[in-house]
Formats: sequence, C-alpha cells, structure tokens
Amino acid sequence: MFDPSSLKYDAKGLIPAIAQDHQSGEVLMMAWMNMDAVRQTLETGRVTYWSRSRQAFWVKGESSGHVQKLVELRVDCDRDCLLLLVDQHGPACHTNRRSCFYTAIREGAEIVIMAPSEA
Amino acid sequence: MFDPSSLKYDAKGLIPAIAQDHQSGEVLMMAWMNMDAVRQTLETGRVTYWSRSRQAFWVKGESSGHVQKLVELRVDCDRDCLLLLVDQHGPACHTNRRSCFYTAIREGAEIVIMAPSEA
Repeated sequence: MFDPSSLKYDAKGLIPAIAQDHQSGEVLMMAWMNMDAVRQTLETGRVTYWSRSRQAFWVKGESSGHVQKLVELRVDCDRDCLLLLVDQHGPACHTNRRSCFYTAIREGAEIVIMAPSEA
Repeated sequence: MFDPSSLKYDAKGLIPAIAQDHQSGEVLMMAWMNMDAVRQTLETGRVTYWSRSRQAFWVKGESSGHVQKLVELRVDCDRDCLLLLVDQHGPACHTNRRSCFYTAIREGAEIVIMAPSEA
C-alpha cells in the first residue's frame, strides 16, 4: 500500500505537486501539499492543496467551481515531487486562464500567450 | 525585456522548474534554479539547474550526455514557478527512464509504469 508518510516533505512539511491535464498533457499549475492533503486527495479524488498564504487546506475549485478531479497520482524518483494527472473543470488559474503558465519568454521579452476564458 | 530578478525566489533563493517534453507534452522532471541558473539557461539554451545537494550549477546532461535543450521558458501567474519546454536527449531521469515520474499510485498501491531504457 502507498503510504503518504513515505514521501519526502521539505522543512515546512510540504511537497510540490504539478497538475497536468490527463488528456491534453497541458501543465496547468503547481502548488503544494502536506501529508494530510496528499491523503485527502487520494481519499476523495478531489485535488486538495495546502495554501501557504492562508495556512489551510485548499480544495481546488471549492469557491470557484473549477474543481480538479484526480485521475492518477505519480511520484518522482526522489519521492520529493508529485505529478497529478487531473480532469480540470474550467480554468485552473485564478486569472481565468486554462493554465497558470500563460507567460512565455520569447526573444528576451515576456509575452502573454493565453487569453482568459469568457465567463 | 525579461529580467530574472523579477521572479519570486524562496528563502534559499530558489525557484522550482518543471521540464516538459516540448513535443510529447510528457512531464520529465522537476528541479530547482537560482537567479543565475535562470540567466544561464536563457543565455546558453542549455537547461541549467542549481543542485541543492551539491550546492553547484548543474548543467543537465553535462556528465550523462542527456542534455536538455531549452525550447521555451514560461513563467506562472505568481512568478514563483517555471515551466521549461525542452528537447530532451535520452532519458531525463538518473534511473535511465525517460521521466522521473515513473511511479503511479493505482488502487492504493505503488506501481512502476516505465522501464529504464536499454543502454
């Protein structure tokens, strides 16, 4: 059985988690989990992060409705990073864009490559 | 112009960087950069991390030959995480697997879903 306590957490008890659209492969966002968030995510099938700013659980989409359904959790070779394959409902980013990685560096300049979705 | 000092680094001066295959969309690995590693990566086009264990620059593939050529650097909405679209030569993982995320949690158990490549 997989035991969330077998992962390597940082000094603050956190592990980075990358959310990737399970169908398109698009990287949507990166956020943090603590051990209980990992456990809760696996138990509920709804991705739950730990909000460092609020110091509280952050059930993705709880207020926005833009939930992330967990399709599969993967662990890296060092056991200190998670990859979440997710079914993302609506935009993942708080700016209303599909992905948080909407800024590209091209020829030395920052360019916004993704528009917010229409409400 | 993009200025690497405009990114948000953690207390140790580091920012997480996710490497994704620019063609397949596969997430290959996650490692860390400091400001100079970001600068060097952009200048040389060869992905350069900061090794936390060795406390030194880590030009990916320098010893293994498994280099990562930068195709595009992206920044997230909070400016505290990077997404690197890369052209990965050979396996990205030190276990000789294409990706570091070769362990999946399925039905509560850990399963290795990727074999090391033949030398």
